[in-house]
Amino acid sequence: MKIGMIGGGGVGQTLGAALLARGHEVVIGVRNPSAEELAKPRAQAVPLADWVAKNGGKVVTFAEAAAFGEVVFNVTQGAHSLAALTAAKASNLAGKVLVDVANPLDFSQGMPPFLDPTYAGPTSLGEAIQKAFPQTRVVKAFNTIAAAVMVEPGLIPGEHDLFISGNDAEAKAAVLEIARSFGWTGFADLGDIIGARAQEAVLPLWVRLWTTGGTHLVNLKVARA
Amino acid sequence: MKIGMIGGGGVGQTLGAALLARGHEVVIGVRNPSAEELAKPRAQAVPLADWVAKNGGKVVTFAEAAAFGEVVFNVTQGAHSLAALTAAKASNLAGKVLVDVANPLDFSQGMPPFLDPTYAGPTSLGEAIQKAFPQTRVVKAFNTIAAAVMVEPGLIPGEHDLFISGNDAEAKAAVLEIARSFGWTGFADLGDIIGARAQEAVLPLWVRLWTTGGTHLVNLKVARA
Repeated sequence: MKIGMIGGGGVGQTLGAALLARGHEVVIGVRNPSAEELAKPRAQAVPLADWVAKNGGKVVTFAEAAAFGEVVFNVTQGAHSLAALTAAKASNLAGKVLVDVANPLDFSQGMPPFLDPTYAGPTSLGEAIQKAFPQTRVVKAFNTIAAAVMVEPGLIPGEHDLFISGNDAEAKAAVLEIARSFGWTGFADLGDIIGARAQEAVLPLWVRLWTTGGTHLVNLKVARA
Repeated sequence: MKIGMIGGGGVGQTLGAALLARGHEVVIGVRNPSAEELAKPRAQAVPLADWVAKNGGKVVTFAEAAAFGEVVFNVTQGAHSLAALTAAKASNLAGKVLVDVANPLDFSQGMPPFLDPTYAGPTSLGEAIQKAFPQTRVVKAFNTIAAAVMVEPGLIPGEHDLFISGNDAEAKAAVLEIARSFGWTGFADLGDIIGARAQEAVLPLWVRLWTTGGTHLVNLKVARA
């Protein structure tokens, strides 16, 4: 499958490498894919030139990545997601499955971050993206675990769940298939894209579990009667 | 142990009945404990006169309940918690363990409710209560599950966790002992009272799991490497 990443940070690199390893074609979209930019060090990730040398794929513009992908991943920081997706262009995203992995976290007051009020309360980043790109089939997924766990859930022993939501059943099924290829077996389907409120609200809990529990390899299992 | 409930709704009635059944002395504090008020129907709860007739205990004022309890439970609606605790009086709560079960939910836009921005972001209701009552040992607990599950965790099969946070280790230990008496075996200690941010953020997720999953008998298990 042709897959476009919107964003070249640690999450995009990790998902992209795992997808390439499973035989997909992957491009990473960034604001400026110049040779100089690709050589730059990146926080919690490798220079993109090193990533390409190791994994294959290529680095292109946001718009080229959106145009290329049958499935597109939003792996930008939540504060920049709408700007990056706007640069990627609605026409390039129309009809596509857009997996929204981003979290609208505000780090302005240090740790722990909190949910940006713009996308908290009776809304969410996932819903804001779906509203801004009505022709795109937005699926919120993978936003509640560390990047390493996204593509290797077995790093955490025992049962635990991937949360997913979205308005389009076929789009959700496509994302579940990708997740299964990474080894996911437990899923918590939170219904339509309003479920993104719940998924993004996991972040304050996840960060706290990480900082008080000593490992970012932490996730949740839903238990029901 | 002498236990005071601040609030006479379904949560206070359920916790109170379970504590009476385990041999504790329990009073329920309400704004106005007149015979007329006690006879009134209550949403998702029975008239308090019926509760006393069935379970024992008695109904008193907020201040009398706070003065009576060695352990005091805040089982008011989050929007009214600080007013109720102020009526209960800081002097009556000084040195006491205060178990904060409340959630600052805003139902003004219907279902699903969302976290009141006053107590979301870089703060929480639990922290606001601790700040307003610095002589009181606030422990956030029991706020992430249905009332029936609080006192009977076995209603949900399999492993699942009770989240707890607070600044005072002895106070947390006292609350854990009460939880164990209800049958709880899984605990997720979220550290000091800042953990209340994480616990209150569970609510949007919990409500969504309930409404999409068809049962309010739902909880979370923390899985870690």
